[in-house]
Amino acid sequence: MEKLTLIKVGGQIVEEPETLQQLLTDFSKIEGNKVLVHGGGRAATKIAAQLGIESKMVNGRRITDEATLQVVTMVYGGLVNKQIVAGLQALNVNALGLTGADMNYMRSEKRPVKEIDYGFVGDVKEVNAEILADLIHKNVVPVLAPLTHDKKGNMLNTNADTIAGEVAKALAKYFDVTLMFCFEKKGVLLNSDDENSVIPEITEPLFNQYVKEEIIQGGMIPKLENSFDAIRAGVKQVVITKADEIGKNSGTIVK
Amino acid sequence: MEKLTLIKVGGQIVEEPETLQQLLTDFSKIEGNKVLVHGGGRAATKIAAQLGIESKMVNGRRITDEATLQVVTMVYGGLVNKQIVAGLQALNVNALGLTGADMNYMRSEKRPVKEIDYGFVGDVKEVNAEILADLIHKNVVPVLAPLTHDKKGNMLNTNADTIAGEVAKALAKYFDVTLMFCFEKKGVLLNSDDENSVIPEITEPLFNQYVKEEIIQGGMIPKLENSFDAIRAGVKQVVITKADEIGKNSGTIVK
Repeated sequence: MEKLTLIKVGGQIVEEPETLQQLLTDFSKIEGNKVLVHGGGRAATKIAAQLGIESKMVNGRRITDEATLQVVTMVYGGLVNKQIVAGLQALNVNALGLTGADMNYMRSEKRPVKEIDYGFVGDVKEVNAEILADLIHKNVVPVLAPLTHDKKGNMLNTNADTIAGEVAKALAKYFDVTLMFCFEKKGVLLNSDDENSVIPEITEPLFNQYVKEEIIQGGMIPKLENSFDAIRAGVKQVVITKADEIGKNSGTIVK
Repeated sequence: MEKLTLIKVGGQIVEEPETLQQLLTDFSKIEGNKVLVHGGGRAATKIAAQLGIESKMVNGRRITDEATLQVVTMVYGGLVNKQIVAGLQALNVNALGLTGADMNYMRSEKRPVKEIDYGFVGDVKEVNAEILADLIHKNVVPVLAPLTHDKKGNMLNTNADTIAGEVAKALAKYFDVTLMFCFEKKGVLLNSDDENSVIPEITEPLFNQYVKEEIIQGGMIPKLENSFDAIRAGVKQVVITKADEIGKNSGTIVK
């Protein structure tokens, strides 16, 4: 099977012109099949504030009321996505910006209301990987915004990490997928104050041990749980690293 | 050659939930290959105003400074485009939203500054129709936002009528194209106060005569000039009609 690199970058990287340009340059140098998944939360918060819409977050997730859904549809699907696509095209990467609604590549359902009403947030139900694989085989590079749809006419807000994980799993049928999560640290750290304490490789038993010892905490826990989930579903490897380390053999490899 | 219907609708239709839903329903009933090109100017003006950005228009064209470019990229490429795509998907139309940057399907150049500096407005230079024809043959329905790019990393604002005309011309190599411009009247009128005075068919000599007699005036003149231009470039027919007349055999046929 051919290799494919799927990179997820957060909002911070893509919202500053300098870091965005560096990311796009690094990404353009990756050989072979590739996909980029991006966030955009900070830009959404900023535009929402300018429009007088308050951003409410619970456990790091955005509560998406109707006005907020309009903002994220504009910002993720329009502003951020098209800046990335145009930037990649300038580097001769044949980028195509997509939301889940486009070609119905990802269908979700509005999250049921339990303790918290997240509003127009979609839980992924179906990935149409064939149409993505088809385009990728024609050297098209999908650039995926963190938006899905319910196939009933509604866009839904979906976490970019989740999109990356679900697409990686669905594409594992067609490619040897490396899923790379970029965040603000160089990898999973043994000591959160020491950037040089990157754990080079982590397995599930080791992860469970580190969680018990409280070495791994907070947002890193769901990130790693998603990673093991992807590995079990056929993804070849998951790498957790920093955006400016793309292309270097660094970061934490999840096996 | 297979037939293809390319419909251009203005902002007014797509910005009101009721008229949008009617349009999407009518559009979904069109048989065979199809493409939708949309505007979004009113939504852009509204969001710009909410963001404290003044909309400056000259001869009906938006002066696109950097802040305005961000707004139109968000509104046309995100908000309006994705609402249409999600709405069509709900009607089982396999819609794919695109700007010119996506797969580099339309490259433009920033308009040179003469008497007026239009800002980040793009004049179309190149249409990559093959990639569109390819998708259309797979039952994908392109939904085109009025945005292009310069292949140097910049999005550019491009008039939706122009996009429709250029795409129709480029697709004429692959399909028998009917280009349909929808606007607020039932067609080209002999008497602008009488909705029932639609001219059923218009040729270039007749057009020239009507312009001389001042029967045809204002914004209808460039619309018809573009239509004759499309016919000369191989487009089978151009129809000028009202959005709620789609599917009926009405309007003005330009030959």
